[in-house]
Amino acid sequence: MIPPFRIFKPVPNLVFAPGAISQLSASLQEQRRPDGYVVYIIDHYFADGRLNEIIAAAESDVVHYLDTTDEPTSAVVNALRENILAHQGKTPDVLVAIGGGSTLDTVKALSIIFTNKGKAEEYQGWDLVSQPGILKIGVPTISGTGAEVSRTAVLTGPLKKQGINSDFSLYDSILLDPSLLSTVPAAQRFYTGMDCYIHCVESLSGCFINEFARAFASKALDLCTSVFLKDGSDADLMVASLMGGYSIVYSEVGLVHALSYGISWAFHIHHGEANCIIFNALERYYPQYVEEFRQMVDRQGLMLALPKGLTYDDALFEKMADIVLLMQRPLHNALGADWRNLLPKEKIIEFYHQL
Amino acid sequence: MIPPFRIFKPVPNLVFAPGAISQLSASLQEQRRPDGYVVYIIDHYFADGRLNEIIAAAESDVVHYLDTTDEPTSAVVNALRENILAHQGKTPDVLVAIGGGSTLDTVKALSIIFTNKGKAEEYQGWDLVSQPGILKIGVPTISGTGAEVSRTAVLTGPLKKQGINSDFSLYDSILLDPSLLSTVPAAQRFYTGMDCYIHCVESLSGCFINEFARAFASKALDLCTSVFLKDGSDADLMVASLMGGYSIVYSEVGLVHALSYGISWAFHIHHGEANCIIFNALERYYPQYVEEFRQMVDRQGLMLALPKGLTYDDALFEKMADIVLLMQRPLHNALGADWRNLLPKEKIIEFYHQL
Repeated sequence: MIPPFRIFKPVPNLVFAPGAISQLSASLQEQRRPDGYVVYIIDHYFADGRLNEIIAAAESDVVHYLDTTDEPTSAVVNALRENILAHQGKTPDVLVAIGGGSTLDTVKALSIIFTNKGKAEEYQGWDLVSQPGILKIGVPTISGTGAEVSRTAVLTGPLKKQGINSDFSLYDSILLDPSLLSTVPAAQRFYTGMDCYIHCVESLSGCFINEFARAFASKALDLCTSVFLKDGSDADLMVASLMGGYSIVYSEVGLVHALSYGISWAFHIHHGEANCIIFNALERYYPQYVEEFRQMVDRQGLMLALPKGLTYDDALFEKMADIVLLMQRPLHNALGADWRNLLPKEKIIEFYHQL
Repeated sequence: MIPPFRIFKPVPNLVFAPGAISQLSASLQEQRRPDGYVVYIIDHYFADGRLNEIIAAAESDVVHYLDTTDEPTSAVVNALRENILAHQGKTPDVLVAIGGGSTLDTVKALSIIFTNKGKAEEYQGWDLVSQPGILKIGVPTISGTGAEVSRTAVLTGPLKKQGINSDFSLYDSILLDPSLLSTVPAAQRFYTGMDCYIHCVESLSGCFINEFARAFASKALDLCTSVFLKDGSDADLMVASLMGGYSIVYSEVGLVHALSYGISWAFHIHHGEANCIIFNALERYYPQYVEEFRQMVDRQGLMLALPKGLTYDDALFEKMADIVLLMQRPLHNALGADWRNLLPKEKIIEFYHQL
C-alpha cells in the first residue's frame, strides 16, 4: 500500500499470559546459532539479580543492567554497541529488553545500529533506516508508554531529542507478562499509566482520528480509568498500554506531549510525570478528561507540581517554546491546520510562565 | 515463544480508510514481477463489473468472480488452481480477495496450494502447511466474520468441514475500506455482523478468556450493539469485525458455533444466519446477551427460524450431533473441562428436535 493511506504494522508476535516470562529461555533456544549469544538489556531496577533464575542466561550471553535515571541517549546506545562488540567480537543473535519505555527504546535503537553503519543519532527522524536490525524481543515491566508496540525509539542525541521512526524499530516479539508489574512503585505506575491515558485523550480529541484508532483509544481509556479509579488489574493496564500504543501509531498525540517535551528537556522531568504536570494545566483544552484525571490523581494521593527551586529565564523559555514548535504533527492534530496562528510562540512562553 | 503460551500473530500490514481501495492498483505495482500477474478473486455480487475501474487489472491479470452461494469447498479451491495454472502457465505474484468470509477463506486456501503440493483438503487441520503461500491481500466487502484477520480458512472437503489452521493462512495485507460496505443488503449485513457479536459473547463467556482477548471482545461487542441498536457506521462495524476476530484468535468460540455447524451442514444454512438461529435458542446459556440480541433482531424487522419444509430423521440428527462433538475446543471453552459429561450426544439431539 502507498501513501496517503498509512500502513498500520503491529508487532508480529505477541504472548500475553501471567508467568509467560518463564518460557523466555526456552524460546530463545530456537533463535540462537550454535556459537551465538544473546544480549539482555535489563532496567537497573532489577540489578539485584532477582530475574537471574528466570532468565537463565548462558555463559556466553551478555547481561547488562541499564541505568534509566535519565531518558535514553544516542551516546548510551552507541557505547553499548562498542562495548558489546569489543567484548564478544561479533554481533549477537538476539537482543532481549526487560524494562520500561527507556529500556525498550534503547534496545530498539541498539538493534538498528548493529546492522546499520554509523551512530544512532544518524537515524533520528523518519524512515532513515535501510536494514532490518538484530532480532529483538521486548518484555515490558511497567505499562503505559506504548513503547512495546510503537515504531519509535525516542532518543536524545547531540543535536536534538527525536525518535528513530522506522518499521525496523518494531519489536519482532513482545512478551506481556502482567506478573512482572507487581513490584512497580505506585507513583511510577501511575505516571506511566497516565502516559497511556493522556495519549488516548490526545488521539480521541485530535483531527487525525478515525474509527480504527478511536476504538483502540476509547477501550484503552476505559481500562485506564478502571485501573486507577476502581483498582483494576495490572493485566488490564498492560492491555491498555498496548491498545493506547496502537491508537497513536495510527493517529497522533497532541498538545500535552508537545508541551511536555519542553519541560522534560529543560528540567529533566521524566516523560510520564511531565505529561501529568502539563495535562493538569490544560483543563481548557480537554475539560472533561482533566476532571477525570484529577480524580485519579487524588485517589493516588499525589501532588502534581514542578520541582521546587528550578532556575529559568527568558532565554530558557524561548528555547523550550522552540522545542514545542518542532512538534508539527501533534500540534496540527490538536489544533487543526491553522495551528501556527492559534499557538504563536508567545502563547507557549506565557503558558510556561503560568505553570 | 513456545507452548503452552500461544503466540498471537496479527495481520502484518493493514490500511483502514474510506476510499483506500482506490490505491490497490498502485500498491500492487510494487509486488508485480515484470512478466508476472495478479489474480483477483471477487465475490460474484460484484460481477456486474462495478469495481473494474477501481481495480484496473492489467491485461495479463486474472479476474475471477466467485460464486459464494455455497460456502467454500476444497473442490472449488483445487479447481481454481488448476484452471489458473492451465491458462497462465505459471504461478501468480499476488492474490487479491475482494468479498466476504467465503471469498477471503477461498483465497487463503488457494494461496497455500500454489506453493504446497497436493490438494486443499490435505491441509485441513492444525499447522499442516509447511511453505508460505503466494502473497495475498484481503479486501473485505462485508464485516463480521473476522476472516480478514484469522489464521483459519474454513473449508468443506470430501471428508469433513474443517479449517486450514496455519500461520500461512494469515493475509499479508488487508485493506479495510468502509465505503465498500455501503451496498450490502440489510439482512446479510445483520447476520454477518451478528457473527461478530456472537463470537464475542462466546469468547467473553468462555473459560479460555484472558484480559487481552476480553478487551478486544468487549470493545467489538460495544461497537456491534452501537451499530445495530443506534445506527452506527459501517466503519465501526468493520473495526468490530477486526477486534472480534482478534479476540477469538486468542481465545475460542463456544456453544453457538459448535451447534450451528450441525445445521449449516445438514440444511445448507449460511454460517451467519445459522449462528443467529442457534443463539436465539440458547437463552439459558447466554441470558443477558440473548435478550440484547433479540432487541437487535427486532429493530431489523427480521424473523429467525429454520427454513420451512426441511426433511430430517433420526439418522440425520445423529450425524449432526457427531459434527458438533468434533468441536472439542469450543465445547471445552463453553462448558469447561467436563464438557463431555455436560453435553452428551442425546442432549444435542434433543436440542435440535426442539429448534
